[in-house]
Amino acid sequence: MSLIVTGSIGIDTIETPQGKADDVVGGSSIYFAGAASFFTPVRLVGAVGEDFPAEMEAMFTSFKGEAVDTAGLERRTGSKTFRWHGKYHENMNIRDTLAVELNVLIEDLPPVPDHFKDSRYVFLACTAPSNQLQLLEQFPKRQLVVMDTIDLYIKQDAENLAKVIAAVDGVIVNDDEAKLITGEQNVVIAGQKIVAMGPLFAVIKKGEHGAIVFHRDGSIAALPAFPADKVIDPTGAGDSFAGGMMGYLASQNAKSFDIETLKKAAGYGTAVASHTIEDFSVGRLQQITRANLDTRLDQFANMVRIE
Amino acid sequence: MSLIVTGSIGIDTIETPQGKADDVVGGSSIYFAGAASFFTPVRLVGAVGEDFPAEMEAMFTSFKGEAVDTAGLERRTGSKTFRWHGKYHENMNIRDTLAVELNVLIEDLPPVPDHFKDSRYVFLACTAPSNQLQLLEQFPKRQLVVMDTIDLYIKQDAENLAKVIAAVDGVIVNDDEAKLITGEQNVVIAGQKIVAMGPLFAVIKKGEHGAIVFHRDGSIAALPAFPADKVIDPTGAGDSFAGGMMGYLASQNAKSFDIETLKKAAGYGTAVASHTIEDFSVGRLQQITRANLDTRLDQFANMVRIE
Repeated sequence: MSLIVTGSIGIDTIETPQGKADDVVGGSSIYFAGAASFFTPVRLVGAVGEDFPAEMEAMFTSFKGEAVDTAGLERRTGSKTFRWHGKYHENMNIRDTLAVELNVLIEDLPPVPDHFKDSRYVFLACTAPSNQLQLLEQFPKRQLVVMDTIDLYIKQDAENLAKVIAAVDGVIVNDDEAKLITGEQNVVIAGQKIVAMGPLFAVIKKGEHGAIVFHRDGSIAALPAFPADKVIDPTGAGDSFAGGMMGYLASQNAKSFDIETLKKAAGYGTAVASHTIEDFSVGRLQQITRANLDTRLDQFANMVRIE
Repeated sequence: MSLIVTGSIGIDTIETPQGKADDVVGGSSIYFAGAASFFTPVRLVGAVGEDFPAEMEAMFTSFKGEAVDTAGLERRTGSKTFRWHGKYHENMNIRDTLAVELNVLIEDLPPVPDHFKDSRYVFLACTAPSNQLQLLEQFPKRQLVVMDTIDLYIKQDAENLAKVIAAVDGVIVNDDEAKLITGEQNVVIAGQKIVAMGPLFAVIKKGEHGAIVFHRDGSIAALPAFPADKVIDPTGAGDSFAGGMMGYLASQNAKSFDIETLKKAAGYGTAVASHTIEDFSVGRLQQITRANLDTRLDQFANMVRIE
C-alpha cells in the first residue's frame, strides 16, 4: 500500500570527524522516502527552488526498492532550495548548525497531486501544526497517519499541535521533543502522556541510544540502537528510522497495529538507520536492498533476544 | 557458587527531584552485594570507620536472597567511614557531588578472611589498579574475575590498569570510562578494544540507555534500560547491574560463558537496577525477592524481543 510523505528537501553541507561532504542532497524527505521505499511504494510531496540540481532530483528514484513517485516534487521558479550546513563534534551525538537558509520551506506548501489524494498511509513530517492539519484533510481515505514535529512548533503553537496529535495515529519524536510536548522529564511518562493525547502509538527516538514505543493499550517496546562500529555521518538517521518503520507498517496494509508489529517495524527502522549512518547523505541507502535490511534485522533481533 | 566482592561502603546524603535522604547506607558494595545475593551467596570485604552505625551494618544481611557473609567487613578504630553527598538534576542522568570524604577508602585495604580465599567468583570493584592486582593474587582458585574502575585510575595508572584488564575475565565500565581507557569515541569500537586487551568479555554501561556486551568471539549483545516510569534515586543502579549480572553468572557455576548467557545475566542486572532506582538507597532492594526479578526479566525480554 503506497505511503505519502510530505517534508523538507534540501542541499546539505556536512562536516563530521570522518570527513566533509559539500552540497549533497538532504532534508527529511529524501531519507524518509529512501528508507520507506524498501518496503512499499512512496509518493513524495515537497518543494525545491530553481537552484535544485537535476541530479539531486534523480536521487529520489535511485533506491533499489519500490518506486518513489515524485509527481509531488514542485520546482518553484524564483525560489531557492532549503540549505543546511552542520558540523558534528567528536561525540557525534552533538552537532552545531553553522548555517541554515529556510528559503522555500517558509513559503506556501506545495500542492498535492490529485492522484495522490487516495493515499491511505500518510507521514506528516515537521511543518507548522496548522499546515499539518490542513494536509491531513487532503487524504480522506487515510488509514494510518504518523507525524513528526520539532521544538520550534511545540513552543510556537502548542494548541494546534495538540489537535494534530489527537488526529493522527502515531507520533514519532525525539526525547527532547517528547519532554517539551508533555513538560515531563521522564521519557516513559512523557511517552505515556503523548499516547493519552489521542494517538494509537508514540515512538520516542533517542538517537544512538535507540527508541521506545508506547501503545495505547499500555504495552511498551524498548529497542537499543544497532551497535554501529562505522559511523560516518549521522544525518538522516532519525528520518530513516521513521521511514523504515512506516514503510514496513504500510506494507502490512492494516488499519491498526499491535505492539509486536510496531516493535518489528521499529526494528526495520533501526536496520535502515544503521545503514544510513555508514556514509554521507544517502550514499549508503542507494547501495542496499531489502535483503540487507532483512539480514540486519535478524542480527539485531539476535543481539537483543533474551532466552 | 559464592561470589566475593571488594568495594566501597559509605554513608550517603542524596538529593533528587523526588526528595532527599540523609545519612543512608551507600557505596558500591552494598548495592552489588544486595543485587548479587538474589542469585548466589555473597562474601564481602570492605572497611568502615568507627562511626559506621550498627543498623547500617545490619543492612548487608537484610536482603531476601542468599546469605551475605560480612566476615570481611572491618570496622577500623580511629578511622572514619567514606561519605558522599550528591544532588541529581531535573534530568537525573546528571548529578553534582556536593561533598565527598574518602576517609577509610584511602587507607590500607582490609584483610581478606582466610575462609574467603577459596572464592571462585571475584568482583574487583574500583580501587587503585595496583590494589586490584594484589587482591587478585589472594584468590588462587578463581574461575571468573570481573572488574570495575573509574576515570581517576584510568588517568593515574594506565599501565597497571592494562595489567588488571589482561588478568581478569570481564570488565564492566560505563561509556565514558570505556572511551577513556581506549581513546576511542565510538563505544562499539571501544568495547572491542577492551576485549582485545585480554578479557573474555566487556560490558559498557550507558546509564538510563542500557548496556552493550562484547564477547571475545566477536559477538555483541545490546540491551536498552528497563523503561522506568518511577525513578526516585538513580544511585547504585550501575553497581546493582554489575551485582545482578555477576550474581547470575556465579549461580551458573561455569568457567566460561557464551554471549547468550552473558546477555541473560545482563538482563538480570537490568532487572535489579530497575528496582534499585525505585527508592532511595537500598530501600527497594530490601523489599524484593528473586521472584520479582524473574517477573521483571520476563517483562523486559518481551519488550525487546522482535519476532
